[in-house]
Amino acid sequence: MENVKVILCGLGAMGSGMAKMLLDKKGVEIVGAIDSYEGKIGKDLGEVLNVGKELNIKVSGDFKNTIKDTKADLVLLAIDSFVKNVFPYIKHIVENKMNCITIAEEMAYPYTINKELSEEMDRLAKANGVTILGTGVNPGFVLDTMIITLSAACRKVHSIYASRVNDLSPFGATVMRTQGVGTTVEEFESGIKDGSIVGHVGFQQSIPMIAKALGIELDEIVETREPIISNTHRETPYVTVEPGMVAGCAHIGYGMKDGKAVITLEHPQQIHPESEGVDTGDYIDIKGDPDLHLSIKPETPGGIGTIALAVNMIPQVVASRAGLKTMMDLPLPHAIENCFANQVAYYKEGEF
Amino acid sequence: MENVKVILCGLGAMGSGMAKMLLDKKGVEIVGAIDSYEGKIGKDLGEVLNVGKELNIKVSGDFKNTIKDTKADLVLLAIDSFVKNVFPYIKHIVENKMNCITIAEEMAYPYTINKELSEEMDRLAKANGVTILGTGVNPGFVLDTMIITLSAACRKVHSIYASRVNDLSPFGATVMRTQGVGTTVEEFESGIKDGSIVGHVGFQQSIPMIAKALGIELDEIVETREPIISNTHRETPYVTVEPGMVAGCAHIGYGMKDGKAVITLEHPQQIHPESEGVDTGDYIDIKGDPDLHLSIKPETPGGIGTIALAVNMIPQVVASRAGLKTMMDLPLPHAIENCFANQVAYYKEGEF
Repeated sequence: MENVKVILCGLGAMGSGMAKMLLDKKGVEIVGAIDSYEGKIGKDLGEVLNVGKELNIKVSGDFKNTIKDTKADLVLLAIDSFVKNVFPYIKHIVENKMNCITIAEEMAYPYTINKELSEEMDRLAKANGVTILGTGVNPGFVLDTMIITLSAACRKVHSIYASRVNDLSPFGATVMRTQGVGTTVEEFESGIKDGSIVGHVGFQQSIPMIAKALGIELDEIVETREPIISNTHRETPYVTVEPGMVAGCAHIGYGMKDGKAVITLEHPQQIHPESEGVDTGDYIDIKGDPDLHLSIKPETPGGIGTIALAVNMIPQVVASRAGLKTMMDLPLPHAIENCFANQVAYYKEGEF
Repeated sequence: MENVKVILCGLGAMGSGMAKMLLDKKGVEIVGAIDSYEGKIGKDLGEVLNVGKELNIKVSGDFKNTIKDTKADLVLLAIDSFVKNVFPYIKHIVENKMNCITIAEEMAYPYTINKELSEEMDRLAKANGVTILGTGVNPGFVLDTMIITLSAACRKVHSIYASRVNDLSPFGATVMRTQGVGTTVEEFESGIKDGSIVGHVGFQQSIPMIAKALGIELDEIVETREPIISNTHRETPYVTVEPGMVAGCAHIGYGMKDGKAVITLEHPQQIHPESEGVDTGDYIDIKGDPDLHLSIKPETPGGIGTIALAVNMIPQVVASRAGLKTMMDLPLPHAIENCFANQVAYYKEGEF
């Protein structure tokens, strides 16, 4: 049985992590690697990944031609968060008849953010006989896939509340900046206004996905971003936060119906939540018949989880019927310990 | 859009529960009801369900002809736990070109228990263009679907441990007897030997499903059933347990590879676990990269959960390609708040 052939497009922290994970798996091989960073282009992928050996794949800086000239089953795209920015890449990949899994957050459920581009991607995918999927740990898993799946045990769902509490202390300067860690309250408010402080990208994906899957009607999605004002001294190698300063961003998304929040997703992101007695974790509370309370403690690791979701969905995507898909359309996601080619054969044969 | 049409076969606690749940849903209707109990046959379904109104469906005692003469999309089969016993019913349903969802525990993953009948059911389903699915809360959801789905965030899985701890105190005489509640240790051991004390039916389904989905190789599945010896006085209207007597059955299933337990599933069932400080709950621990710890507290309710899973899987099953399926083959399960016919249309259009 032939290996599943994969091209990596984007070799940042996530793309590199996916590449390293693939090297450890059976029945799947990397046949191409693309990045725009000068310091990586032209080097052997093994050197770029620092795996201690050559892989005989040169990192290309030429996306267009590498996609055109390299035969593969699927491209893993890890370059950007937004539909508008990844669309031209996905278009080119799909027009060269290759499936695409991307961790661009907006692609986890792109219909709400950009209906036209979503319909275009679906049309292109079908015309070329391939599948597109956006996934990751959040959006893509914790605050959507896990909620949707848990609800299966409910005869009725009245409302959903979920919260993902993480610790940003392992991260570097960029994350500190985009989450407003170490700012004053005024600087934080200002950063929210000018868009330099982002909070979470994902509520416009997770909330509509849950609503679509469960058939819950929503009038609108409302988001709030508040500063997490620290009462304690917190620090990392990149930032120091004194009492009264901002330790992070409390971002909440509300799926509203008739003025009530039917789906509420919280994602407070800060450094060292434990310094004020807050445990990290993923918490899901469904109010319905019955009520269900789920927790994952500590939280599903963000980076590892995103790498794992992207790679683990390869067989379902390669076997899938053509089109733009989301996590609610495909069979149960799961870890893969055996040959990827065997997994693809299983899903193709069973084809839902 | 036409309603999805459903026949209920089996109107015990579970079957009745499914019928009542369906009455509350949109875009789906009950078109037939079958039971073997004299006291129900010939009565209006509304009277049997005690819903305070007539439903104009007479409960039939004639399975063969009702299945032959009633047009429906799907039959919900809730009559028995074992493949051998439900096979002739499923065969007849499928040969009359109707899909079938059953809560027979062995049908959640029947390949291990009975390979020949599984292949025959798959062949019959494909020949008749319909789908068969076994599901429920356990097996079917907690100790398989939830474990499989959670593992998606793992780059590597070394071993899995999961435990479902429930309270049998709501149940009646039959359950007390089949779980050995209120016996002496000698009576318990004797009941295990002669098969009158059953413990859990499901490890021969959940363990192979997890192993198949994740591609984990197993040499064998080993099961143990030990008495839960109470240190406290516990009682229900049906049974009294003194210290030293048996409060229930501690049933464990081990998926073994090279002499090591790679997948361990525990399902201790007893009355009033809280009397000895044991919380009810569903607990999943994956050891791998990363480790993940999930809990649902209190545990997913057993009866409600099984009713919900069976009904909630109707759209995926009706839309599915033909064949014998399990929970790992179908899109994410979930609660349904909107029109069932719309859900079917969505899955048919998107068809994985």
